[in-house]
Amino acid sequence: MSLLVVGSVAFDAIETPFGKTERTVGGAATYFSLAASLFSPVRLVGVVGEDFAANDEAVFHGRKIDLAGLERAAGKSFFWAGRYSDDLRTRETLRTDLNVFAAFQPKLPDAYRDSSFVFLGNIDPQLQRNVLKQMRRRPKLVALDTMNYWISGTRAELEKTLKLIDALLINDEEACQLAGESNLLRAARSVLRMGPKALVIKRGEYGSMMFHRDSILAVPAYPLEEVHDPTGAGDSFAGGFMGYLASHAQANHVSLRRAMVYGSVLGSFAVEKLGVERLRAIKRREAESRARQLVRMMHIKL
Amino acid sequence: MSLLVVGSVAFDAIETPFGKTERTVGGAATYFSLAASLFSPVRLVGVVGEDFAANDEAVFHGRKIDLAGLERAAGKSFFWAGRYSDDLRTRETLRTDLNVFAAFQPKLPDAYRDSSFVFLGNIDPQLQRNVLKQMRRRPKLVALDTMNYWISGTRAELEKTLKLIDALLINDEEACQLAGESNLLRAARSVLRMGPKALVIKRGEYGSMMFHRDSILAVPAYPLEEVHDPTGAGDSFAGGFMGYLASHAQANHVSLRRAMVYGSVLGSFAVEKLGVERLRAIKRREAESRARQLVRMMHIKL
Repeated sequence: MSLLVVGSVAFDAIETPFGKTERTVGGAATYFSLAASLFSPVRLVGVVGEDFAANDEAVFHGRKIDLAGLERAAGKSFFWAGRYSDDLRTRETLRTDLNVFAAFQPKLPDAYRDSSFVFLGNIDPQLQRNVLKQMRRRPKLVALDTMNYWISGTRAELEKTLKLIDALLINDEEACQLAGESNLLRAARSVLRMGPKALVIKRGEYGSMMFHRDSILAVPAYPLEEVHDPTGAGDSFAGGFMGYLASHAQANHVSLRRAMVYGSVLGSFAVEKLGVERLRAIKRREAESRARQLVRMMHIKL
Repeated sequence: MSLLVVGSVAFDAIETPFGKTERTVGGAATYFSLAASLFSPVRLVGVVGEDFAANDEAVFHGRKIDLAGLERAAGKSFFWAGRYSDDLRTRETLRTDLNVFAAFQPKLPDAYRDSSFVFLGNIDPQLQRNVLKQMRRRPKLVALDTMNYWISGTRAELEKTLKLIDALLINDEEACQLAGESNLLRAARSVLRMGPKALVIKRGEYGSMMFHRDSILAVPAYPLEEVHDPTGAGDSFAGGFMGYLASHAQANHVSLRRAMVYGSVLGSFAVEKLGVERLRAIKRREAESRARQLVRMMHIKL
């Protein structure tokens, strides 16, 4: 079923102990689309600058990613540079040049307005609402990402947006910040009262959790021998999660639980190589194999 | 079935943002016994000083904990004082007076020498081996705890001991230190080559994992709204794990997986109140209820 993503397409300069890239195509919508398109066609809405060349766009080729919504604006593309610590647990942002992304006003091509599954990437919560206003009908499921910048800077706007969505995908720190609460369980309950029916907490190497009012699910991270670049892990998680749901055309408790496994799996692929390299190469059957392994790692009957 | 634990019985002075105790009965063998005895009778081997009064011993009453192996030596009991940070994530040791524990030489009462399940708490690896030498026959399962002090200070002795055991229960940092490896999966594989057939990694609020040569299990921590004192969480985990196994008289893949759930559950009770207060109060049915909830939090079918 139709899956729409709105978010950043950027150039990244990434430094890790395992290698570096001077300028590789990244951005949340890029990681999301590459992960999600393993399961479902993706419609992308984003903006790039005049420096975004045909061979940059090639990153999306070979996958069912519709670029009709990828606007080209005068100026330069969003550029981000970061350096990871030796254990990859922390990173320093060396540069953030928003460039054309600073004035991004998501405009949905007419053909996108009937999308059944919508992922609103980490942008101004007012713009996230504008996307929903452009939809011809209420999507089956709207999921949202956000970050500390919007939680502290535009809280009232964010709270309005939260009332309109079904699922919020953030990390544990963001959930605690949003709730003003250091205990994760209490924070989750407080966030669920703000609107979303499902709260997905991404915890990196410690896995992920999904909270509903009446249930909790915990999914481990797929254990990896080699982690080379954490960039985009959360966006790839969201892509696997939403791509799986869209491919099954439904968002009930059972499919949401399964979607968490695919989120975890796609997050695991994303970090194995620099930038989007590994994500571009994976096959559906590799993802299915990891999903089965992950479910076996959770299997207990009392 | 018979379960033996060898380890510390101590007085603890604990300071947390939620309260403090000046002198409460603690120590690894205490937490372990209180947790394990919910499932199985426990035989305790440890040492206390002349300051350990009848009403201190009362902490063990009302549970099937055999104290024939609790030696009383001239001098003072092991004393530990620590203070936790506001978020309970770090703690500062204010004082460690080993006292009678410094010269601890575990001596098994004759009736203990046929124990089927043995937990060797965190003591000198040479002493851990001495315990095994006192057994009349090879137990069904021997599990072991250790710490950075022994890993760096007495590595050769520890490696000898590791060859004799079935399961090692440590935290992720200890596993990485033992393997000389920062990646947890590679560390786990390396530790399994040292002897134990099962490696249990305790990760606090992030849950626990069990590694075998051919399988991995991940169990979440039971989510809590109130965490008041992390002291003894790992020992209580070990107690729940071993107590469950002993009560089922077997240690196969299925029972080991279930035991991980009970480990997680007992660890969750331990941290809810100061010292051993919560552990002393819990009922078997409360533990069963949490175990069922935890299994529901892991339930996914693809």
